[in-house]
Amino acid sequence: MPVPSPVLYPPFNVVRLSHVDLGVTDLSASRAFYVDTLGLQVTHEDDTAIYLRAMEERGHHCVILRKGKAEVGVLGFKVYAEADLDAAHAFFKGEGLPVEWVAKPFMGRTLRTADPLGTPLEFYAQMDRLAPIHQKYALYSGVKPLRIDHFNCFSPDVDASVAFYNSFGFRVTEYTEDAVSGRLWAAWMHRKGGVHDMAFTNGRGPRLHHLAFWVPTPMNIIDLLDLMSTTGYVANIERGPGRHGISNAFFLYVLDSDGHRTEIYCSDYQTVDPDHEPIKWDLKDPQRQTLWGAPAPKSWFENGSTFAGVPTQEPSLKAQPIVAP
Amino acid sequence: MPVPSPVLYPPFNVVRLSHVDLGVTDLSASRAFYVDTLGLQVTHEDDTAIYLRAMEERGHHCVILRKGKAEVGVLGFKVYAEADLDAAHAFFKGEGLPVEWVAKPFMGRTLRTADPLGTPLEFYAQMDRLAPIHQKYALYSGVKPLRIDHFNCFSPDVDASVAFYNSFGFRVTEYTEDAVSGRLWAAWMHRKGGVHDMAFTNGRGPRLHHLAFWVPTPMNIIDLLDLMSTTGYVANIERGPGRHGISNAFFLYVLDSDGHRTEIYCSDYQTVDPDHEPIKWDLKDPQRQTLWGAPAPKSWFENGSTFAGVPTQEPSLKAQPIVAP
Amino acid sequence: MPVPSPVLYPPFNVVRLSHVDLGVTDLSASRAFYVDTLGLQVTHEDDTAIYLRAMEERGHHCVILRKGKAEVGVLGFKVYAEADLDAAHAFFKGEGLPVEWVAKPFMGRTLRTADPLGTPLEFYAQMDRLAPIHQKYALYSGVKPLRIDHFNCFSPDVDASVAFYNSFGFRVTEYTEDAVSGRLWAAWMHRKGGVHDMAFTNGRGPRLHHLAFWVPTPMNIIDLLDLMSTTGYVANIERGPGRHGISNAFFLYVLDSDGHRTEIYCSDYQTVDPDHEPIKWDLKDPQRQTLWGAPAPKSWFENGSTFAGVPTQEPSLKAQPIVAP
Amino acid sequence: MPVPSPVLYPPFNVVRLSHVDLGVTDLSASRAFYVDTLGLQVTHEDDTAIYLRAMEERGHHCVILRKGKAEVGVLGFKVYAEADLDAAHAFFKGEGLPVEWVAKPFMGRTLRTADPLGTPLEFYAQMDRLAPIHQKYALYSGVKPLRIDHFNCFSPDVDASVAFYNSFGFRVTEYTEDAVSGRLWAAWMHRKGGVHDMAFTNGRGPRLHHLAFWVPTPMNIIDLLDLMSTTGYVANIERGPGRHGISNAFFLYVLDSDGHRTEIYCSDYQTVDPDHEPIKWDLKDPQRQTLWGAPAPKSWFENGSTFAGVPTQEPSLKAQPIVAP
Repeated sequence: MPVPSPVLYPPFNVVRLSHVDLGVTDLSASRAFYVDTLGLQVTHEDDTAIYLRAMEERGHHCVILRKGKAEVGVLGFKVYAEADLDAAHAFFKGEGLPVEWVAKPFMGRTLRTADPLGTPLEFYAQMDRLAPIHQKYALYSGVKPLRIDHFNCFSPDVDASVAFYNSFGFRVTEYTEDAVSGRLWAAWMHRKGGVHDMAFTNGRGPRLHHLAFWVPTPMNIIDLLDLMSTTGYVANIERGPGRHGISNAFFLYVLDSDGHRTEIYCSDYQTVDPDHEPIKWDLKDPQRQTLWGAPAPKSWFENGSTFAGVPTQEPSLKAQPIVAP
Repeated sequence: MPVPSPVLYPPFNVVRLSHVDLGVTDLSASRAFYVDTLGLQVTHEDDTAIYLRAMEERGHHCVILRKGKAEVGVLGFKVYAEADLDAAHAFFKGEGLPVEWVAKPFMGRTLRTADPLGTPLEFYAQMDRLAPIHQKYALYSGVKPLRIDHFNCFSPDVDASVAFYNSFGFRVTEYTEDAVSGRLWAAWMHRKGGVHDMAFTNGRGPRLHHLAFWVPTPMNIIDLLDLMSTTGYVANIERGPGRHGISNAFFLYVLDSDGHRTEIYCSDYQTVDPDHEPIKWDLKDPQRQTLWGAPAPKSWFENGSTFAGVPTQEPSLKAQPIVAP
Repeated sequence: MPVPSPVLYPPFNVVRLSHVDLGVTDLSASRAFYVDTLGLQVTHEDDTAIYLRAMEERGHHCVILRKGKAEVGVLGFKVYAEADLDAAHAFFKGEGLPVEWVAKPFMGRTLRTADPLGTPLEFYAQMDRLAPIHQKYALYSGVKPLRIDHFNCFSPDVDASVAFYNSFGFRVTEYTEDAVSGRLWAAWMHRKGGVHDMAFTNGRGPRLHHLAFWVPTPMNIIDLLDLMSTTGYVANIERGPGRHGISNAFFLYVLDSDGHRTEIYCSDYQTVDPDHEPIKWDLKDPQRQTLWGAPAPKSWFENGSTFAGVPTQEPSLKAQPIVAP
Repeated sequence: MPVPSPVLYPPFNVVRLSHVDLGVTDLSASRAFYVDTLGLQVTHEDDTAIYLRAMEERGHHCVILRKGKAEVGVLGFKVYAEADLDAAHAFFKGEGLPVEWVAKPFMGRTLRTADPLGTPLEFYAQMDRLAPIHQKYALYSGVKPLRIDHFNCFSPDVDASVAFYNSFGFRVTEYTEDAVSGRLWAAWMHRKGGVHDMAFTNGRGPRLHHLAFWVPTPMNIIDLLDLMSTTGYVANIERGPGRHGISNAFFLYVLDSDGHRTEIYCSDYQTVDPDHEPIKWDLKDPQRQTLWGAPAPKSWFENGSTFAGVPTQEPSLKAQPIVAP
């Protein structure tokens, strides 16, 4: 049985994923994609960075576009209270992982650390809060993104990644098992009561496979496809639309000009029950990937964004999913 | 300032609203409404009761239709762990409220108690878990309800009701204030990270104003309107479709054959952040009720379902909302 | 039997309704409504007029906003070929109605005439054709109107109006009969194969009750409601959303700053068969108006736009529909 | 210029495509697909055939499932009046094509003939008319098909097929040209005012590539995908969902148990104007096939249904579209 039991009383309380710091080589090209095409709202911009939020978010930002190399700076998570930050500091330090208090604009006290693979993580309890805009309908554009939903990362050892995040309270909702080895090929883990805040997929890692935004209906995604197809972004559509068997999500994967992948995502389900049972899928079941049967393109299984300064490793599990010819 | 500060470390951990026990005078008429029209799934039925769940629920039931008088038996809530049940027992007992362990089919240890108005409540940690059906698309029918979302109750003293539920961890997301008296006219409170698990509206109470099911898009609601309008249920459509200013929900209110009111509800938002700021509305703002301007019918402000054996009181706050002529 | 038999070989071939010339008192206020809010595209504008088309139209314009009094200039129809124009000239002249060839910008030879009530009409075969924009998705905004769909006019004698338009090929698809007098209270007539190009409703007339745009789904209408409600147009929402029993259309009625009424409309059906049977409704059937049961507001039955220089008459049929209290 | 000029006054008036007679090897398997899965309504069935209509159709049938070999019996078209039938008889006879008056159940006088490739065609003016069911919402199921929309046929000589159908009034709305030879690779032709009643694609023919049903929104198609994927029909999903560049249609292609292909189709546009300009696409433009960029699978270009007793020819135009690897 590859999925660890959930830890009912974790050492600190992570509320949800919060934000990502993306290195981009051309701020204005990235602005055209994330703001003019996806429809994220700018909350701050200067010569080196653009801060963005989605339509129902009150925290200052969920994405930072930072001028630099095309790699990922850090994945951010919000914890419940300041005391949880101290507990997180103790936890990561106890695991022998690097810990540091860092100053970040628009945020309160921030703990910078990493998981055992080196994935840069930061935790905070307080971020500047902004006035609601979810009923300012004149601002809605693009895919009308409502909120950041999750991160998905390549891991060279999904069993180990799941065990680590499970130890501080992430709970598995669905997973893919390699029937031959009995090992995890992928797993979806949550804190905020949806299918995931963080997922891991077998592959060279650590790398960010994608970040995702939640939208209410497939119509949002169809609108984005029509827009991208007729504004010069047709080559940036990588996979979809379709419905994943796993998570039941209606999905679309698109690429920015640096190759960072974003999923637009709807139709997942509520998982707040602490006794919510994980769903197991077989690696060789094509409906796992796409309920409707179409396999994913090879690029989707291969490409990802590296984390700044973090070396990657090849996975030990060599089993392969079904790939489009 | 009428809204109390949230209690960050409540005495026990309520996960979410869970189920309601509805007294109905004609089981077969109620089955026609909740199963054949709304599309809830039967998980158990016998001569005296029908147990129902919505499409993404794994708990055994969210509604019990129980043959009897047209009144409400109890409102049920799920707590995080068995220890929370004991803490809840201590909390309610400490408040001088009745507490009792009761045996309920399909459920583990169950605490029966009541709030200060007498609203019958029950708490449990474990209910029978059923296999997922959310991807059995052939079963979807009616409004395709995904999950129970919330209860809304009339209270003769909303300030007091809010203070009480706040004391064990419910957090206010939006509220209506009577500008004249400075008192609360209505409030929406959550545990599971949406706009509400429980709301209170000024009026003769305690009475259940409505229960609500969550659906993903307004199209579900339009389909239900078309179905009800052409299958003999046109008189059971009370209000809607529309969008509430409060909660931003696209809504429809329908009545069963005993007058119990159900809301079908979508488009609310995520509220998991512990520092999520409540939104204040003025009682005299018509967009509070319906963002698009149409006032609610009088029946919507007046009618509700009593709780079995619980006397009601008139509200002391006499301020009136805007009502359709 | 109040509905005349269709004329299979009419004296001239009307293809469809085409355009309306609306007098507006403030061009910039009207532009804000029709362009910035509804999403129509400007094809020409100068100091005295703004020409608009919808997203899938190739003809130069479907609406002309003309600076002047808040009244309607003319209703325009496209005929099949130049020969039909000559035949129309002969037909209207033969009926003793005024006929005149007029010069209109962006249009070929144009016949100006009127129906027996004085409703100003114009017919043409050729209008400037523009390049397609239906796949320029970046241009879509507001309600994303695809095409003009129909006109609806108050008539003081619906039987007579229907008989007249029937005589040159309009075919009745649905109608409302006053059961007491056996007279028509309203009728929907088409040329282009939908439920209507032109409808008549009993009332002081001739007046334009509304023009209508076709959209593909109710979601377009819900988006418009959200936009209008939060950009200062909440008082311009007159009726809806709802589904008409007649025509099966999902509808919304909105008013511009001069009180001209526009319907946004979807979900009607195809009527190209020449033996398509009209559907009869009783004036006292509330589901005729709104399938879901809610009656229309009084203003909807009373207010309309006069035609420039055309006196109105009170209807002889005094029967009344069901009106919201 | 490969597209012939439209014939404004054709020799007879075809109103629309009407019905198809499909040979199926297992009536009960076909019933499960067309009725239980797609949601067509049975209007007659006996041991040898099942007659079906879609939700807004009043004609007796649009599909006949006839027990026999897996091939197509005939494509049916409705003409405007009985006189058009006689004119059609004269036209086809004048072209040296076979003509015969045949007796068909539920239909009036019926002309059986063929186009120059041998495609079996039948024309009629009158078919039994049935009571409307479009507002019987309890009957809607599956993809909720509203009406038959078009046929698409392989032709070994698209230029010739287009010229022939053009000669009796079909008008081209969009077409694909092979830039090298200047010949037509595909064309879409209509009578009823949509993008097509009949389309031709270069390939071994004559064969039926697909029939199509019109639905109002992409959500209908997504619902069908979810249903088929979870009721044993995942392998019957051939292509889609996607949006065609040509026609702008949101599409899905599914196969019945005999390999007959059905398209589910929405989002096309109105083409009633006689001067509606055809849109030209290049064979090598991938957005022609799918606006969003994904090429069609090889099977979609190769497989089709033969017509009973009609030999096929290979196309002379050897140019190839872009095919998925």
